[in-house]
Order: sequence, then C-alpha cells, then structure tokens
Amino acid sequence: MKSCGLIVEYNPFHFGHQYHLKQSKEASGADCMIAVMSGNFLQRGEPAIIDKWHRTQIALSQGVDIVLELPYVFAVQNSDLFAKGAVFTLHEIGIDTICFGSEQGDITPFMKAYDHLNSQQEYYKESLHHFLNLGYSFPEASRHAYKAIGLSEDSIDLTQPNNILGFSYTKTILDYNLPIAPMTIQRTKSGYHDETITHKIASATSIRKSILKQQEMTQEAEGALPPSSIDKLREYGHKANGWHYWDRYFPLLHYKLTTLSPEEIRTFHGVEEGLEFRLKHTIKEATTFEEWMNLLKTKRYTWTRLQRTITHILTNTKKEELRPLHELERVPYVRLLGMSETGRKYIKEQKKKMNVPILTNMQSGEHEFVTIEERSVDAYFSCLPMVQRKSLRKREIGPPVMPHM
Amino acid sequence: MKSCGLIVEYNPFHFGHQYHLKQSKEASGADCMIAVMSGNFLQRGEPAIIDKWHRTQIALSQGVDIVLELPYVFAVQNSDLFAKGAVFTLHEIGIDTICFGSEQGDITPFMKAYDHLNSQQEYYKESLHHFLNLGYSFPEASRHAYKAIGLSEDSIDLTQPNNILGFSYTKTILDYNLPIAPMTIQRTKSGYHDETITHKIASATSIRKSILKQQEMTQEAEGALPPSSIDKLREYGHKANGWHYWDRYFPLLHYKLTTLSPEEIRTFHGVEEGLEFRLKHTIKEATTFEEWMNLLKTKRYTWTRLQRTITHILTNTKKEELRPLHELERVPYVRLLGMSETGRKYIKEQKKKMNVPILTNMQSGEHEFVTIEERSVDAYFSCLPMVQRKSLRKREIGPPVMPHM
Repeated sequence: MKSCGLIVEYNPFHFGHQYHLKQSKEASGADCMIAVMSGNFLQRGEPAIIDKWHRTQIALSQGVDIVLELPYVFAVQNSDLFAKGAVFTLHEIGIDTICFGSEQGDITPFMKAYDHLNSQQEYYKESLHHFLNLGYSFPEASRHAYKAIGLSEDSIDLTQPNNILGFSYTKTILDYNLPIAPMTIQRTKSGYHDETITHKIASATSIRKSILKQQEMTQEAEGALPPSSIDKLREYGHKANGWHYWDRYFPLLHYKLTTLSPEEIRTFHGVEEGLEFRLKHTIKEATTFEEWMNLLKTKRYTWTRLQRTITHILTNTKKEELRPLHELERVPYVRLLGMSETGRKYIKEQKKKMNVPILTNMQSGEHEFVTIEERSVDAYFSCLPMVQRKSLRKREIGPPVMPHM
Repeated sequence: MKSCGLIVEYNPFHFGHQYHLKQSKEASGADCMIAVMSGNFLQRGEPAIIDKWHRTQIALSQGVDIVLELPYVFAVQNSDLFAKGAVFTLHEIGIDTICFGSEQGDITPFMKAYDHLNSQQEYYKESLHHFLNLGYSFPEASRHAYKAIGLSEDSIDLTQPNNILGFSYTKTILDYNLPIAPMTIQRTKSGYHDETITHKIASATSIRKSILKQQEMTQEAEGALPPSSIDKLREYGHKANGWHYWDRYFPLLHYKLTTLSPEEIRTFHGVEEGLEFRLKHTIKEATTFEEWMNLLKTKRYTWTRLQRTITHILTNTKKEELRPLHELERVPYVRLLGMSETGRKYIKEQKKKMNVPILTNMQSGEHEFVTIEERSVDAYFSCLPMVQRKSLRKREIGPPVMPHM
C-alpha cells in the first residue's frame, strides 16, 4: 500500500484541511493517508479547543486512515523540534511521501533554500547570534539572518509560519537522509493569522475566535466547518462544560506561579534569563490571561514563545526532561489514536518491519515521554469541573478510535 | 501594664471564646489581653473559614487588645511546634501570664504531668517508638506510651486535644525557663469535637459545620456567636463569594498532585514513607475532598496529620524549609495584625525592651518565614474567583487593624 503522511493539528478541522487532505491524496496517489497530530497542546503553545479523541474522530470521518499522536515533548516546540518529532513518527510507520501546504505549492524552492542555507550555514548562525544579541526575538532575528545570507528571489519566504514549518519538514528529511519524498500543495487563500471569517475557507484561528467569543457555535464558524467537525465541537463542548482556551487555565497558573519560588520556576522548559521573576511579578497584577500576556511580552519574547513556556509550566515540564530531544535519532514509540479499515490493514502490513512499538493505549508504554504525555493530559483537563475532568480523563487509557469495526 | 497571653484560632470567635477571654482577664488581673492567633491555616490542617483580618477585627471588638500572628511555619504543626511558636511569640512581646482553657481548670496536674514525664522521659520515648513501630498513629502511640509510664489519676488526660495543647504550652515555658506564669481556666461544657449544636456554648467545629452545610448563616450558628462574629462572617462570605473549606481547594490539589512527580511530592513537609504514591494514586479516584480523605487515611495516618500534610502541599512548603524550627531559640519577628488603644500603649512601652522587630506589614520583613507566610496567603485565596482573589490578597500588605484610631 502506498502511503502519504500529513502533519496536522486540526484545531478544529475545517474546509481548508479537507482541501489539503483531498489534494494530498490525489497528488501522492496514496492508498493510505496518515496524519501525525498534536495531542492536547499545540505548537503555538495553546490548549486544543477540543481534545485529541474528538479531533481524531473528525479526521477519520473525513478520510484520514491513521491518526498518530505527535508526543507532547515535540508538539509544543519550535518548528525544528516539532518537525523532527512529526517526520520521525511518520518515518517509523513507513510512509512514502510527506505532503504539506505552502503558499507556492512547489517543492523546488524549499530544496533550493535548503541547499543555500547549507552552504551558508556558518554565516547564517553568525548573523542569527548577532541579531539575537541585539535583543530581537528568535523569529525576528532569523528573518534578518535569512536576509543577510541572501535567499534568492525564487526561494521561499522563510518569515511565513507555514513556510517555516514546511522548510523544517524538508530539512529533517534531508538532514537525516530519510527515504521520504517531500511534496507540497498550494494552500487556498487564507492567511494563517486571519482573524475574521470572510469566505468558506477560513483559518482555524478565526474559527476558534468566533466560537470562543460567543461561547457557542456561530454561523460564521459553521460556514467554514464540515458537518462532523461541527457535531464533534458541539458534543465535546457539552461533555466538557465548554471548550478549552487559556483563560480557563489562568486561575491555576496564578495559583502555581504565586506559590512557587523563582528557583522552582526556573526549572521549567523555556524559562531563561530571569523570566521567572517577570512571570511571578506580572501574574500578580493580572486578572485574565490576556491581561497577563500583555504585561509579560517584550521585544525579545514573542507571544508564541511565551505561550509555549506557559504550557510547560502548566504541564510541569522541566528543562532536563526535554534535553535528550536534540540527540534523539528516532522516536521511541508510535502512538495510535485511531484508524480506519484501510489503516488497520496498512498497520498489519507494516508492523513486522517496524523498529519501535505501536502503543494502542498509554498503559502499554513505560517510556519517559509517556509519563510526560499523561501529565499533559491531566493538565489539559485541569480547567474542568471535577466530574467532567474525571470522565474525560478516562478516555486516555482506552483503545484507539476505530469507526465501524 | 500587666499583660496576659492567649493562644487562639477563633475559627470563628464564639461564646466559648468570649467566656475564656473574660475569665482569663479576671483571673490574671491583666490590663492588656494579647492573643497570638493562627493566620489563614490552622493547627488541624484546615483553611480558616474567614481570613485573619476579619478574625482580628472580631477579636478586637470582643476585648482583645493585641492580635499577633502565629507564623504559618508554626501554625500548621503538631502541638509541640505549635506551642513553641505561640509561647515564643508571646514571650517576645513580654507577657506575664499565659492562660489556656482546660477540662479541670487547675494548673497543678499539668505541672505534675510535666515532672513525671521528665523523670520518665527515656521510658516514654522507648514506649512511644515501640507503639509507632507497631503501626499506630502518633496520637494513639503516645496515648499508649502515657499509659505505660503510668500518669497518675490526679494528673491530666493527655489524650484530650485541649489538654495536649495546654500541656505543650506548659512544657515550652518550663523547658525554656521562660518568665511566664502558666494559668488555666475551666472550659465550659462542650466537647472539642462536638458536631451538633445543643446549647449556646458550641464548638467552633459544630458552628462551621452548620454554616458550611447550608452555605449560609444558620439560626443554630447565630445562637452560638456574638453579633460582631456574625457580621464579619457575613461580610467576608459576601466579599469572597463564600467561605473557605477544603472542598473549594480540591480541584487545585487534584491538578497539583496529578501533574507533580512522586519525587517532587516527596519534598513536601509531612510526606514520608511512600505517602507520595498514595497521595497521587488516591486523588485520581476521588471527586471531592472527603472522598479523597477516606481513600487516603490509614491506621497510621490520622485525619489531622493528613490534612496538615495537604496544607503544606497546597502552600508548597518543603521539608527543608521547616527543618530549622527545632533548633530555633527565639522567633525571628513578631507580626502585629491589630491593636486597640490599650494595645498601642502597651506596645509603645514594650518596644524598647524587645529583642526582635515588630512587623506591621509584610513588606517590612525579609525573613524566610515572611516568604512562606506570603505564599500561604496566596494559597489561601487561590480557591476564589480571580477578582475576589486579587482584592482580598491586597489586604495582606496593609497596616494592622486599629479600630477607632
């Protein structure tokens, strides 16, 4: 069976995702579509609006054959580590192609950018440090460094979030010499950061914003979502007494940061250069998450970086726990969140060739990443009332989603 | 000015406390009544039903002249350390007498018990260890040890909570040879643990139970409380959107214990002998605090001991932070929560003779105990909605309560 890998968050699954899925299947000619999906916390340092199980159900209903979990340790990271975890996971399950969305829909400029960057690596690093030392945030500094090494006109714009991710996927494949063909299809017209819904293809950000603002499903959101996505969003909101967003976690974060010492806060992944004092000081002044973020952010710390750090604080994730990621040569396991009948056949075929175990529930794994994963699940549900917290938490130890089996 | 010290929690102040205050003043012939009062967390490991500031206001309105804070580090401890902190604090401010309530109302049997225990100390310790090794809880083991050394009939019953505390006060005075006269007055008839209100003098436990069950002021409670106590309970309940009790903290404790590792939980004061695993394991199963406690308790761990440990977990108090308490020869400061005009004059008189500073607000102190105190305040208010949390927390840095000045 020919397989194609997608790297997704589906937060929530919308028509843009549907388009990407369909185009990728066509372009790759794959029989089996495999998505590696972030669990309950996402790359930009946010809780997913609904949990991984409901997002898996939607993905399967839309034609994804296998949903694998991107472990928390990779999911809430900068693009390089995120890509490493995602590509490695897809590689272990033996995919032939990875297909990602990009502005141009052509893989050549990604390859060119890779070659150019490789030949200019030393100068790029130097420039990057230079701009970081001037107090720029990482994205800003790297934008300037790219300019400095002169990425050509027919190369990609590496300041665009989607291009950065696509480039990181390509880079991981080429750096590790993996037998995977990188592919890209053109994204439909909607900026990643769009905050208003103007047409059927809307960004996930604008859809979440619309729903969360009204605290109910809106017409605008419904117009951009396939029916199963609407159903599952409703269903989850009902079960969990609402959706997940930072404001619901703010009281917990306030409790945690006011009662921990600066020395303890310093142990969390992402807390550097005295940020522990700033975190403690600013949270005392704020009453909402947004108020806090506005007090917290500086030129140096982007909103995304701060949110990632806050996610690690919420999930109690320490620097020392994530240190081994950089040296990792393969993911320690592949966790199956759900599969279709096609997916089941594919896995049966692949299983014998695989070098790492497939986990079908959390109890079957004893890796340190599993411990961190479980903790992140507890943290995710911690904003819910006790009864909902307990009942939704139980799903985590259940079997993968298998519709119609 | 002649002064008399009382050791109190006033949770809440009731007619029994009024009686004790009045009788102590008469018996001691003191001009100035000085109470050392637990702050927001109490000796039996519970949050105070209303905060220290409202309890201070009540105390002053009832005739107490000075309210000093018993630092958190002493307040949530077994009777020996609790007594040490309380007696040392009163000693620093120069009191002449300490007057506590007891069943007999006679100090002689306390003195006798002290002498007897002193002469039998080795045997007592041996017996205590023997019974602890058999798996008894500390109170149970010490009850058996007292029996073993044969405390005479005209001595006190050291299995009664109030007698244990009274004995610890006496012991502290005599052990450290302090120039304080221990006195006791007979308590009015109401068992410490009474859970139903049958007459005007009711236990604080039964009053809290009645109010918390109904979530409003009840007739039974009103019958046992002086008007200022009723007013302040109402006022605080209004300000804080309810009163404080363990159930309101359960979601936070659940979050904390599910996301901390056993190794981290082991660092909290009171977590011994593998209790970290039991804490983590049982909290997953429970939906309310009481459910949890019932899963948690064993023959070895009394409810009170567990509650104290849970308080230290909530306030993030570590073993290493409380280790210095045993060697302490004096309290590092005396914190003033409130004073009457008489109290002010008394303090003016005493101030020059004192060996430690009087803190009139938290910002004036930089001792490690102050840091712990602040943390305990943050933990105390952490069960409230953000707006109430922020506004009530502010009071902590304000000046002492001074009515009519």
